[in-house]
This record gives sequence, C-alpha cells and structure tokens, in this order.
Amino acid sequence: GRWTHEEAVAEVRRRGSGFVWIGLHEPNEDQINGIAETFDLHELAVEDAVHAHQRPKLERYDDTLFMVLKTVRYVANKTLTTNSEIVESGELMAFVGRDFVITVRHGRHAGLARVRRQLEETPEQISLGPAAVLHGIADHVVDTYLDVTEAIQDDIDKIEAEVFALRTKVSAEQIYLMKREVLELRRAVMPLAKPLQRLAEGYTPIVPEQVRSYFRDVDDHLTTVSERVASFDELLTTLVDATLAKITLQQNTDMRKISAWVAIISTPTMIAGIYGMNFEVMPETDWAFGYPVTLLVMLISCLVLFKTFRRNRWL
Amino acid sequence: GRWTHEEAVAEVRRRGSGFVWIGLHEPNEDQINGIAETFDLHELAVEDAVHAHQRPKLERYDDTLFMVLKTVRYVANKTLTTNSEIVESGELMAFVGRDFVITVRHGRHAGLARVRRQLEETPEQISLGPAAVLHGIADHVVDTYLDVTEAIQDDIDKIEAEVFALRTKVSAEQIYLMKREVLELRRAVMPLAKPLQRLAEGYTPIVPEQVRSYFRDVDDHLTTVSERVASFDELLTTLVDATLAKITLQQNTDMRKISAWVAIISTPTMIAGIYGMNFEVMPETDWAFGYPVTLLVMLISCLVLFKTFRRNRWL
Amino acid sequence: GRWTHEEAVAEVRRRGSGFVWIGLHEPNEDQINGIAETFDLHELAVEDAVHAHQRPKLERYDDTLFMVLKTVRYVANKTLTTNSEIVESGELMAFVGRDFVITVRHGRHAGLARVRRQLEETPEQISLGPAAVLHGIADHVVDTYLDVTEAIQDDIDKIEAEVFALRTKVSAEQIYLMKREVLELRRAVMPLAKPLQRLAEGYTPIVPEQVRSYFRDVDDHLTTVSERVASFDELLTTLVDATLAKITLQQNTDMRKISAWVAIISTPTMIAGIYGMNFEVMPETDWAFGYPVTLLVMLISCLVLFKTFRRNRWL
Amino acid sequence: GRWTHEEAVAEVRRRGSGFVWIGLHEPNEDQINGIAETFDLHELAVEDAVHAHQRPKLERYDDTLFMVLKTVRYVANKTLTTNSEIVESGELMAFVGRDFVITVRHGRHAGLARVRRQLEETPEQISLGPAAVLHGIADHVVDTYLDVTEAIQDDIDKIEAEVFALRTKVSAEQIYLMKREVLELRRAVMPLAKPLQRLAEGYTPIVPEQVRSYFRDVDDHLTTVSERVASFDELLTTLVDATLAKITLQQNTDMRKISAWVAIISTPTMIAGIYGMNFEVMPETDWAFGYPVTLLVMLISCLVLFKTFRRNRWL
Amino acid sequence: GRWTHEEAVAEVRRRGSGFVWIGLHEPNEDQINGIAETFDLHELAVEDAVHAHQRPKLERYDDTLFMVLKTVRYVANKTLTTNSEIVESGELMAFVGRDFVITVRHGRHAGLARVRRQLEETPEQISLGPAAVLHGIADHVVDTYLDVTEAIQDDIDKIEAEVFALRTKVSAEQIYLMKREVLELRRAVMPLAKPLQRLAEGYTPIVPEQVRSYFRDVDDHLTTVSERVASFDELLTTLVDATLAKITLQQNTDMRKISAWVAIISTPTMIAGIYGMNFEVMPETDWAFGYPVTLLVMLISCLVLFKTFRRNRWL
Repeated sequence: GRWTHEEAVAEVRRRGSGFVWIGLHEPNEDQINGIAETFDLHELAVEDAVHAHQRPKLERYDDTLFMVLKTVRYVANKTLTTNSEIVESGELMAFVGRDFVITVRHGRHAGLARVRRQLEETPEQISLGPAAVLHGIADHVVDTYLDVTEAIQDDIDKIEAEVFALRTKVSAEQIYLMKREVLELRRAVMPLAKPLQRLAEGYTPIVPEQVRSYFRDVDDHLTTVSERVASFDELLTTLVDATLAKITLQQNTDMRKISAWVAIISTPTMIAGIYGMNFEVMPETDWAFGYPVTLLVMLISCLVLFKTFRRNRWL
Repeated sequence: GRWTHEEAVAEVRRRGSGFVWIGLHEPNEDQINGIAETFDLHELAVEDAVHAHQRPKLERYDDTLFMVLKTVRYVANKTLTTNSEIVESGELMAFVGRDFVITVRHGRHAGLARVRRQLEETPEQISLGPAAVLHGIADHVVDTYLDVTEAIQDDIDKIEAEVFALRTKVSAEQIYLMKREVLELRRAVMPLAKPLQRLAEGYTPIVPEQVRSYFRDVDDHLTTVSERVASFDELLTTLVDATLAKITLQQNTDMRKISAWVAIISTPTMIAGIYGMNFEVMPETDWAFGYPVTLLVMLISCLVLFKTFRRNRWL
Repeated sequence: GRWTHEEAVAEVRRRGSGFVWIGLHEPNEDQINGIAETFDLHELAVEDAVHAHQRPKLERYDDTLFMVLKTVRYVANKTLTTNSEIVESGELMAFVGRDFVITVRHGRHAGLARVRRQLEETPEQISLGPAAVLHGIADHVVDTYLDVTEAIQDDIDKIEAEVFALRTKVSAEQIYLMKREVLELRRAVMPLAKPLQRLAEGYTPIVPEQVRSYFRDVDDHLTTVSERVASFDELLTTLVDATLAKITLQQNTDMRKISAWVAIISTPTMIAGIYGMNFEVMPETDWAFGYPVTLLVMLISCLVLFKTFRRNRWL
Repeated sequence: GRWTHEEAVAEVRRRGSGFVWIGLHEPNEDQINGIAETFDLHELAVEDAVHAHQRPKLERYDDTLFMVLKTVRYVANKTLTTNSEIVESGELMAFVGRDFVITVRHGRHAGLARVRRQLEETPEQISLGPAAVLHGIADHVVDTYLDVTEAIQDDIDKIEAEVFALRTKVSAEQIYLMKREVLELRRAVMPLAKPLQRLAEGYTPIVPEQVRSYFRDVDDHLTTVSERVASFDELLTTLVDATLAKITLQQNTDMRKISAWVAIISTPTMIAGIYGMNFEVMPETDWAFGYPVTLLVMLISCLVLFKTFRRNRWL
Repeated sequence: GRWTHEEAVAEVRRRGSGFVWIGLHEPNEDQINGIAETFDLHELAVEDAVHAHQRPKLERYDDTLFMVLKTVRYVANKTLTTNSEIVESGELMAFVGRDFVITVRHGRHAGLARVRRQLEETPEQISLGPAAVLHGIADHVVDTYLDVTEAIQDDIDKIEAEVFALRTKVSAEQIYLMKREVLELRRAVMPLAKPLQRLAEGYTPIVPEQVRSYFRDVDDHLTTVSERVASFDELLTTLVDATLAKITLQQNTDMRKISAWVAIISTPTMIAGIYGMNFEVMPETDWAFGYPVTLLVMLISCLVLFKTFRRNRWL
C-alpha cells in the first residue's frame, strides 16, 4: 500500500539502510510543515522552499543540506517583442539528509520523472544514497542549461544571418531582447558554480567520496554553459555595434544614390529653364536645329554626370 | 512611567537580562553626547552618526558594533529631468552592545516602526538580544532594496517598450538618467555585502550562533539585489546602443522616403521644363496631341520611378 | 629662539618625549641631505622626495615610514579646452620616525597650516606622537579629494543639463576632457587605499593602537571618493553615447523637416512647369478660370502634403 | 609481430620499465571499453573521451591523469560569410598512467605523428616516461595555437588595411565574424592555463621533477597566445567603432558634396525661372544684351558658390 | 689582455669574490652553447635566449636566475599608416648566477653601455654582486618605458587637439593605430610586474637583502607606467566615441545648412514658375508693376525664410 512519509522514514530508520524521496510541487506552508517537522528541517530553508524566487545556493543546516537550483526552458518565439520570453525559469529545491531527499518544484517545466527513472535503472547509483539523487537532479538541470544555450546559439545565428543579409530589416530590438534573456540565463547559471564546487570538494559528509567526482563532472558542464553564456553576451554587444555600422553604411549608400539621381535630373532642368527665358534676342531659339541640339546637350550632360558618379562609386 | 536612557540601562544591568533600544532621528551632537557617554560609544562612530553621508560599513569598537546602512526609497516621476530623483536615499546607523541597541536615522523614509512591531510579535526573536534587532533592521532595509529594484525593473520595461515602439520619441535622456540612478543604488547596495557576510561568519560575540544564519539569509537577498542592479546596468548600456541603432535606422527610412518623393517629382518638372523652352522649331508643340501625350509620359515616368523605388524598398 | 633641526632632535631625544616636525617645500638635494643624515633617512626615499612625480605609496625603511600622497585642487574653468586643467595635482611626502616627522611639499596647493593648527588645538592627539601628524595629513588630503569630487559632480551636472537641453550646442569635447581629468584624479586616489589599509592594520609599530582606527576612518572616506570617481567614469562613458544618440535624433528631426518643406515646395513648381509648356493646344490655358483654379490646385496639394507630413510626425 | 594492448602492457609490467602508447581516433564505446578495463580507467573519463565536446581540463582519478586539449586549425577563407569558419577545432584526450599513455583524437586535424617522431628522436625524453609524451602533446597543441594566432593576426591586418583604405567597401560583417572566431579560439585556449600550471607545480607524481619545467615552458607559450587573443578582442572592438566613425565621416563628405552641387545648379535654374515669367513689362527681355548678360550672371553666381563651398571644405 | 669567459670565471672563482659579466647580441646556438656549458645554464632558458619572442618573465633553474625583459623604443612618425610602428620592441635576457651575469640582447635599441657606465661609477653598487647588474638593467628598461609613455602622451595630446579643432579632418584611423600600439606596449609592460615583485620579496638568495628595496623602487616606476598605459587605453576608447559624436554633429550642421539654402532658393523658383505659366488670363502679367513687385515678393520670401532658419539655428 501507499506509505505516509512518517511511516516511510520510520521503516527506513528501522532497517538502517535505504532512504526516502519525497517530491512536492509548489507546496503551501501547511503541506510542508508536517514534513519539515518529521525531518527536522530548518525554518529559514522551509520558508525559502515555500516562497521560491531564490537564487541558486547551497546551505548546510546541521545534518541537512538545502540546495536551490534554477530550472530553465527555452520558449520558441516567432518574433520577439518586449513582452515575449525566450527563457522561462522555474525553481527546484532539495533538502538532503542522511536518509531522505525532499524535492520541491516551482514552475511548470521542472519535472524529475526522467531523473527518477534513470536512477531506478542504475541500482549501484541508488546505493550511494541521497547524494546520488542530488547529483541526478543537478546533472539533469545542467543538461537542460546546455539545451537552452544551444537553442539560443541557433537564435543568435539567425539574427546574425538577418543582420548581414543584403536588405532585410535589421532590428536592434531583437538583439536587445536576446541580450536581456541571456542576462537572465546568466543569473540562473553563474551562482550554481560555487555550490557544485563545494559538493565536489567534500563540503559535507552527506556526499560520499565516490559521488564527489560526479559533481566535479557536473561542474565541468556548468563551466561549459557559463563560457557559452559569457560569449553570447560579448557577441550580442558586438552585434549591436556591427548593426549600427551596417545601417549607417546602408544609409550612406541609399542617400548618395538618390541624391545623385536628383543631381543628374536637375541639370537638364536648368538647361530647359535657360531656353524657357523670354528674351527678345536669343539666337539659338531661332535656329532650326536649336531644339534637337539642346536635347542632345541635355542627354550628354546627364551621361557625363552618370559616368562621373559611377566612377566615384556613388551609383 | 517613561524611563530616561540611564535609568533604563541601569535597570537592565541590574536584572542581568533584556536590553535597551533607543531610537534617534537626525540627532545633533548635544543630543547624542549624553547617550554616547552612558553607553561608552567610540568618538569616531558618534561623529559618523551625527554627520551622516557615510557608506555602508560595519565597525567594531571594543565591545560595541557600529553599523551603517543606506536606506532607499523609490520616487515615482512622471517624466525624468536632470533634476529629478528616482532613488532617494537616507541613512540608518546602529550601535549594538551586549545590552543595548541605539539606532540613528537620517532622512525621511527610514522608519523602523514595522521592524519594532515584528520583533514584539516574536518574543523568541527578541530573546536573542540586540543582534536580533540588528537582523530585523538589516532584513527590513534589504527588503526595501528589493522593492526599489522591482520598481526600477518596471521603469526599464516602460523605457524598453517606448524605445521599440513604432514612432514614439525615443529619449536617450531617460535612459541616461535611469543609469545615473542605478549607479547610485549600486553605491548603496554593494558595500553592504561585506558587513553582512562578517555578521554571518561570527565576526563578533555580540551576534550569537543562532542569529548568524539569519544574517546569511539577508546576505542572500542582498546578492539577489546586487545581481539585479548589475544587470540593470548592462541592460541600460545596451539600450543606449540599441536606441542609437533604432534612431539611425528610422532616419535612414525617413530620409530615403522623402528624398525618393523629391526625385519622383523632379522628373515631370524636367519634362515640363523642356516643353517650356522657346525654340521656334519644336514639332511636338504644334502637334494637337502633344499636350495630353506629354502629360501621359510624365505620369508614366512617375509610376516607373515609384515602382522601382518600391522594389528597392525605398518607399 | 629658533632651533636648527639638529638641536631640536637632540633636545627631543634628551627629554625622551615629544617629537620634531620639519616642513620643507620643494627642497633641492643640498637642503635635504643634511636632514637625511640627521634622521638617517634611506637614500631611495630621499631621492623620491626630491624628484617628486611619485605615485601614492607607503614604504618602510628600518624604523622610518615614508609615505607619498597626491594632493589635488579643483581649478574652475569657464570653458574647457584641450589645454585647460580641472584637477591640478601636487605631492606631499612624509618621513615618519619614532620622534620626528619630515614633510616635503611639491606644488602650490599643499599647505599644511590647517593641519598644524588643528593638531595644536587637540593636545591629546599630539601626545599620540608622529603618527597623529601622519593621520592629520592623510585626513586633510582625503578631505580635499572629497571637495574636488563634489566640484566635479557639479561640473558633470552642468554638462548633463547642457546635453539634454533642447537646443544648446552639445559638446563631446567637454565630456571627453572631463573624462581625462577624472582619470587623472583616479590615478591620484586609488593607489592610496593600500597604504591607508596597512596603517589601519598595524603595519608598523610607529602607528600606535589608538591611531589605527583613525586611519580606518580616513580609508573609509577614501573609499567614498573612489566609488564616486568610479561612477563619474561610468556616467561620462554613458553620457558620450547618450550625446551621440541625441545628436543623431536631432539630425533626423532637422533634416526630415527641411526635406519635407523642399518636397512641399517642389509640387507647385512641377504644376507651374506643366502650364509653362508651349504647346499650341492646351485647353486649360484658354479657359478664363484656368489661372485661379491652377493656383487653387497648387495650394491644395501643398496643404495635403503638409497634413500628411504632420500625420507622419515629419513636421 | 604486432602486440595487442594487453600483451604490450603485460610485457612492460614484466620488464618493470618502459611504457605503452595507444592512439585512438574517434573510438566508439565498444572500442574503448576493453582498453578502459585493461588500464582501469575511470568511467566518467571514458565517457568524456567517447562523447567529446569537452572543455580543456585535467582530472586525476586515482593513479591516472586524464587531460583534455582543444586542437585548432586555421581555415583560409576568400570571403567570410556567417557560415564560414576560420578556426576549426577538434579534441585530444590523453589518459596517462605510470606505464601507459592512451591518446584519443576527435576531428580531422589532430594528428600526433610529428609528436611521436620528435620523441623517438630524443631517447632521453622518452626515458622520462609517459609524462614526456603528455608534454610533447601539450607542446605541439600550443604550437598550433601560436600558428593560428599568427594567421588571425594577418587577417586582422588585412581588415585594418581595408577599413582605412580610401574607398573600399568597409564591412562590419567581416569584423564581427572575426570577433566570433576569436571568441571561439579563446574558449579553446584560456581553460588550458590551469591544467598546465598544475602539471608544472607537481600536481601528480606521474609527472617527474625534470618534466615540470617543460610544462612551465608550455604554459609560458600559452600565456603568449592568451595575451594575443585578448588583444585581438580589444582591437576588433575598437575597429568596429573606428569603422563606424569612418563610414559616418565618409557619409558626411559624400552627402555634403552632392548637396553642394545640387545647391549650385539650383541658382541658375532660379534665375532662368525669373526670365521665363510672362510679364508684359520686363525691360531686360527687350534689351539686346539681356540674354548673354543673364548667362554671365548665372555663370558668375555658380562660380561664387563653388568658391564659397571650396573655402568651407564642402567640395 | 682579454680574457676568455672560461678564464674569467675561473679567475673569479679562484679569488672568491667579484663576478663576470658577459654581453651577447643576438647569438646563434653555437655561440651560446660554450657559455651555457661553462655556466651550467638550463637548456630551456638557453633555447629561449636564442629564439627570442618571449614574454617578460623570471625563471629560477637551480642556482641560476633567468629573466626576460622587453625593451621598447619610440619611433616618431609623420603620419600613421597601418604599416607604421610607433613602438619598436626588442628583448633583453639575463642569466644571473652567484658569480656571473650573462646578458643577451635582441633588437637594435637595447644597448647596455649606459648601465655598465653607471655601475662602474658606483663601486658600492657593484660590490653587491650580479643582482646589482640585474637591477641596473631592469631600472634602465623601465626608464625607457617611462620615456615612451611620455612620447605617446604627446601623441595623444596632438590627436586630441586635432579631433577637437574646428575643421580639421578627424581621423579615426590615427586613434585606432595609436590604440594598437598602446596594446603592444601593454603586452611588454604588464607581465614584468610579477618578476619585479618577486625579486623585491626575496624570491632567491642571489638577490641580497640590500638590493631588494631597489627592485621595489623599479616596480614602483613600472606601476606608474602601467597606470599610464591603462589610462591611454581608456582615453583612446573614449576618444573614438567622442570623434564619432563630433563627426555626427558636424554632419548635422553641414547638411542642415546646405539643405536650408536649397529650400530658400526653391521658393523664388516656384514663384517664377507660376508666372511662367501660359494662361491667357493672368491679370498680374498685364500689370505694369507686376514684374518688380514679383521680384520684391521673391526677395521678401527669401529673407523671411533666412530669418526663420537663423532663429532655428539652422544657418
């Protein structure tokens, strides 16, 4: 039959081996208080677990570890607006004791089913105790970071292609919004480094020797993520500047071209103006070939200007 | 009846338990000197407490802690000008001894009534002594930081929306003034990290073991604030660049459009000029359909130009 | 009567209490050599004291401290040019031994009269020995830094107001020159932090326990100065970008307006051109109301264009 | 005859001297599992070796070192597009034990033939054991970094020359793509510093005393590479800004020139317009020299404008 | 007579005092090998000494110090092009043992004659042994850094003056090339700090107590150089932005002016166009004063426009 958590932990303690894993989703204070009492969780940690909006951290209260991780999910957007989100974030907290793990999830996309399945398939992992669960969770979360960075990399590639395409509308807005999301991702990723390093270095007896190198491995992946995020940051900054340079260059080319055409057209207009004057004595106007010759002069002056502008690369 | 502070402290010391909390608001030297003598406060700290304009810090003089915190308040502004302030700051000093807390407030918005009420409602907190008061104050101050960052986040969201709206007046001024205020907020927030860490690490016997993890919690919230403030900074910098790119793009679009129209109009003007010439021999002018055909030519040339410019995306 | 410095130091050493304070202003090598011998000053420090152009530092040679401080003075300028200086800097060196202080001043504005007067008014300070003099000097110098940062703050406020005023000439030059001066101020201020911290931490037995917290206080003020200088730096960088954005926006507005007027005017010109053509058969020209109707058409077309441009916010 | 790796390692262990070097290229799990068992390699390291996409690192599992290096190759491109790569990267992993080296290569360009040849030519190196092989590999990899930075330096020189040439098309795209590649190179180079420093400082007994200074030497070369890469970064950032300044200047020159010509031409057009008016009474039109004098006035007005614009440096 | 280096070192070792100083200029391997054997120099250091292109560093091989310094020389350039160099760099290596100094120079401008002369003039320095020579060299090299920074300061002053002059051609190229050279100088200067600090802190018994404070002095000068170079960097970055702002402002002023003139001229052209129309009934044309009044209207409309533009600061 189903066990209450009190029965489960009592059974585990009677046997002297194994551990209890309790999973909660956005619990309210009432739901968590009973559990907190049974497992003797620290009041501050419990408060954090209920209210969420914590930053990634690792705390040790007596015999219990309390870890907060930010989960992220990539949201595909057709076009970015100031209201759209690329990176949706949630939170995952874990209380880890000698014989229990309590996980608290906030947000939609932080399911741990996959972690549980993987652990159940590798009994030698589970035998390492609650720390193995914590590793499984951290590993899973950092893996999703990797997925998100890859999706963002694709987005940036697309923006690059658009910016440097010949005549598409370059949008500084897209780059800015991308940057905003990258900054948010960075806030989720960076603070996790220290907790992972501590776990890898034997910060607490709850994490046995064998599990530490696994945390080192997770920290390694996190560093890969951090480096990518940092380079996104730099790329986007440079991209804004490059976009500006590109628009300015485009502007120069466009305006030069139109103005050059206006200048070409204004020359025959001037000539026409001259022969439109009403002077009594204008020898050319009486001449039979005056008209065709003037037209020819107009044409030639236009051609000469056109050639000159071409040579100057203005057209 | 009311106690003088000398009587209060004498009573407390007689009983051997409890503590005195004295709250002062912008005291002058005379007002503070008596208190300083009674509680044996260090001259430098007293001077700091009177003159304000200190940066956040924690000092230890013999048995007494002296802590300075910057309080901030968000001031809503319709429109920002170079004279308007978004973040109004004040100061809060606290002398903490074994059996007393003396708080000194500078500026309008540093009321501690809420802190006092909360403490009075949790006797187990008060029983931890003066350090619990210091924690209450620090917690309250950092909470107001969080509120202010949220308000600023809203402001930045508004500016973003304005910058990227289709045709509103983009104002570099707004962004700059926002940046200026964020820098000021940073100056209030950042230096507080070290004092809080020290208090959490058992810098002084005045802060008992149990209270330390509370300070760690406050420090955690401060780090959240710091990270937000840092990302405001980066966002605003990128926003200035994105604004510039947007204006330049807008400029290109506008000028190209107007110039293109001028170019279109100048073509029939040129043709009209030609037929305005006063040559004796101009066969077309004698032809009955000369006028309507010329009008047609003008129209067609305008249409061709219009189509061409459309294709080039200039119109 | 007046004492030579040898007599003074001999007297002090005979009495076994008190100390000698010798003040020099831009001494040459001859002037300082005698003193150097009497007080057994280290050759490298003496060389530094004569040649100036040192950066702030604190050196310990056997029993003698050698400290270099940069003094600064704000110079009010009507308008900034590439040759004008806002921050004029000088130097102040101090040799501090068990029973002597030798101060060497370089530059006009490093007078220590005020420091001497203040010390003479507080005998309990003087009784702390030469270290109290060193504190007095450091305190005075850092106070002048504060004054200078306030003056610069005013200058930056003025520049801000100018940049964002509706139609004043924005000068990138002013901002750049301000930045240059802020960088120079930073070079004077920043390196002083380490010496002050060392003095506060008991780097040398010459500085007695009681004086250390005074140096901590001075270091605190220096940190305030450093933070301000750092934020000037950032503000000016952002200000250059904001200025650029503002000019570009202004340019767009101006050019759009003029070009729109040119476009409006070119429409009646085109119409006039058409009725200036010399075709034999132009029915309108024979019509009695041709002229006023054409004028009306011109007027209407101008009005329509004007309205359209207004709607587009081009006028 | 050929040895299997089991026979080889058995032989080496029987003799008590020498070591086995096994080289693998993109092995799958089956291929590596046998080897992993023979040499008792740690599961996490083996996984890393199969899947690649690791960042440079050094791990110690019991008696075995596991090192990951990024190999890079410069790819010459005629013109850069968003799809082209300048820096192609691969991976090189090495397991180093007391009596064996196992190298795993990923990517085309990570051949170790040259390293093997060099080692075979210097028996005194080989006698230092597996660590000498590790040094040979690290030295070789860092040498290729140096080659790549030199090729990139040439590319940047070319871009510089183009940007500042009189009238070539300046491409912000090229600079941006260069920056992107430099960032990627940096991600390969920077993380290698710590592993090399550790090897130089005697992190593990597998690296004997004599080999350590060789690793220090390699680390030295890596620092040279790092500094170059860092300066590429800064140069490219400045280059984008300088390019923008150059385009803007060019734009100003071009537009000023064309507009000035349009202004010059519009003056005779206006004069011609005046004498094209059909007033009954226009004395000049009846005057015999009216026409040539008007032409002269037109010419002179053009010349005067031309001179004025020249003086203003607009032409 | 002349000594071979073997005889010299044998003599020195026989006497038990003094030391040998051997100076080499770009030696090939043969030339250095004999010396390396005599003085037992480490193979890696010897290799570095032959091949040059090292970065500044300090290595200790058993009893021998090996130090690399970058020498720099300012090259005056009329105008900067992408090929011109402002900072020409060479290298200076020194092997320092208990009783010998071997200096190796690469590049033209690294003469040590002056150092040798100065040392010969101060026998008390020479008596401190080889370390005094190393100090002499380091002091000399850092002095040349100071000279170069002063020359660069002058160059930057000149560029500043040019950028902010009223109408000179602002060249982003000059600023960029200056930045490039400053980056190169930085690469020579910065890495020397650590070696000097080590020598000042008693890293090796070869440097006796008395010489250490001299190295501290050299390190002080190097810090001055570093700070200047760092501020050059920042100034040049700001200068590029300020230049861009200046060009944009200039562009706005120029284009506004020309466009305003074109707008002014197009008004009488339009009026002339109207009276050039060929309507039968145009009362004004028959009026005797039609022509002069029209001319007057044209003039007045031009003046009104001129005044309006002036008021708007467009002219």
